[in-house]
Amino acid sequence: MSHYVIGMDLGGTTLPCAVLDDKHNIVARHEVDTLRHEGQDAVINRMAQCILDVVAKAGLRTEQIMAAGVGAPGPLDGRKGIIIEAPNLKWYNVPLAAILSEKTGVKIVLENDANAAGWGEYWAGAGRGCSNMAMMTLGTGVGGAIVIDGKLLHGPDYTAGELGHVVVMAGGRECGCGGQGCLEAYASATATVSRFEEALKFGWNSSLKGKENISCADIFKAALNGDSLSEHIVAETGRYLGMAAATLANLLNPERLVISGGMIKAGAILFDAIRQTCKEQAFDTPAARMEIVPAELGENAGVIGAAGCALTRIQAGY
Amino acid sequence: MSHYVIGMDLGGTTLPCAVLDDKHNIVARHEVDTLRHEGQDAVINRMAQCILDVVAKAGLRTEQIMAAGVGAPGPLDGRKGIIIEAPNLKWYNVPLAAILSEKTGVKIVLENDANAAGWGEYWAGAGRGCSNMAMMTLGTGVGGAIVIDGKLLHGPDYTAGELGHVVVMAGGRECGCGGQGCLEAYASATATVSRFEEALKFGWNSSLKGKENISCADIFKAALNGDSLSEHIVAETGRYLGMAAATLANLLNPERLVISGGMIKAGAILFDAIRQTCKEQAFDTPAARMEIVPAELGENAGVIGAAGCALTRIQAGY
Repeated sequence: MSHYVIGMDLGGTTLPCAVLDDKHNIVARHEVDTLRHEGQDAVINRMAQCILDVVAKAGLRTEQIMAAGVGAPGPLDGRKGIIIEAPNLKWYNVPLAAILSEKTGVKIVLENDANAAGWGEYWAGAGRGCSNMAMMTLGTGVGGAIVIDGKLLHGPDYTAGELGHVVVMAGGRECGCGGQGCLEAYASATATVSRFEEALKFGWNSSLKGKENISCADIFKAALNGDSLSEHIVAETGRYLGMAAATLANLLNPERLVISGGMIKAGAILFDAIRQTCKEQAFDTPAARMEIVPAELGENAGVIGAAGCALTRIQAGY
Repeated sequence: MSHYVIGMDLGGTTLPCAVLDDKHNIVARHEVDTLRHEGQDAVINRMAQCILDVVAKAGLRTEQIMAAGVGAPGPLDGRKGIIIEAPNLKWYNVPLAAILSEKTGVKIVLENDANAAGWGEYWAGAGRGCSNMAMMTLGTGVGGAIVIDGKLLHGPDYTAGELGHVVVMAGGRECGCGGQGCLEAYASATATVSRFEEALKFGWNSSLKGKENISCADIFKAALNGDSLSEHIVAETGRYLGMAAATLANLLNPERLVISGGMIKAGAILFDAIRQTCKEQAFDTPAARMEIVPAELGENAGVIGAAGCALTRIQAGY
């Protein structure tokens, strides 16, 4: 039997795709623009062509591919291979796995993109060697994935793992999800910028004062350069993440919490605050167990993880 | 093969014990006082005698008992059958399963008491018929248990399921665990009384004003009788519980959240607030999935659940 799988990430801007062997080595990589304005059929055709092209690039035939995993924005039904709703793409109830499989001749496995990235780190990155792991991805929002006893946690509706929507402050800041006080409303890159701007308005001083369109990266850079307000805001982001980390440690007793996204470049200034807060907040035993580590796969996590999900599905025989 | 199991609850005051068949019917029940002041050896001897007595009461011989489950306060190592620390009893590193097994000739399975109660509801009570369940037990503290894919979640250190120590208010009220802002610090019976007393001190009026040693039951009773402050405090307890429920729904997507403990007698006044808050806070799909229901087994949950844990262990063959 062949040992090649494909991973693809259905992003709003690009469609990165790769052929991997079953030891998570990337054999070939290909990427095209999503061009989502062309509509659903055009995008799905481009996805199919991208799969065929990456197979050719790897010098393989499609019969040599066990399956292709596609990471897509949720909510979706990974068991049936249906995208229920992809608001960014304006797709609703699309049986993507069946359509792509028909067009390519390759078995398609659909997975939530945050879960796929988490599985990538578990299979090939910062989660290697443990059985119970959680991942938080810090960006515009806060995404997540949970692995329990070596399996992605999906729940009956395939919605589990929303680490960004753990409540850290009952009745607190409004969240994009419609709730209040979610982790995402405090510790995403977006929320970090909001808290910084609010502090400036409230009269705090900062070397960034007067700068237009302050980004989260600006704040982290200023913090590393000793800007007092930036240091405070970054540490605060770390403390909120640490509180959510403590919730996870106390609830799930995982061996590792992997944190990914652009913010992790900040290194110690962020991770020290997360680790310290979690240690103070969680029970000693699960806090001592849970390593809090940066992700290792960077932008490849989604593609590698989607391929890993496909491999896992094949190995599980369904 | 016989189909009888024993369940016992190692409580600080009493040692309730029962023989059950594998359809969770109680065949015989026996209970003695713990008399913990007599020390570890005396208590363990009494536990052993209680097991032998309940077997006799059922008209059985110990060879007809598949196993006995003992629910004990944590932290403990259920895999090895060792109580690591039982602060109430002042027991440390006690290989309880081995000692009791030696004294009774019955295989002993040790389980955390909150997990045992949760498993009881899952096996024989309000959790019947689902695969993914969480339970919160509201009392002096807030205990918990999590069932995922039909299995109790333990984690590598056997510490998972601490629903009382999910953070609901970062930097908030001090919790008995040493952390801040845990659910237990807001929504236990004890915390509910504290919030009530603080509100009285702050100048709120209430029909309970001037009463000594106000209990949580007093507050719930006053709320049912229309006392405005009591209504507010009870609804607030429900809202904090609802926030933690939303965290669980978003993280784990369980089918059911079972709530147990004396407070559930309050009925709609508490459950409406929990359900409403969870519905407003969590994502629609997991919120719609997760039924929030009162426990059904009452004080028998621990004993039934401990027996169920023993049966499960036997069925799993280890």
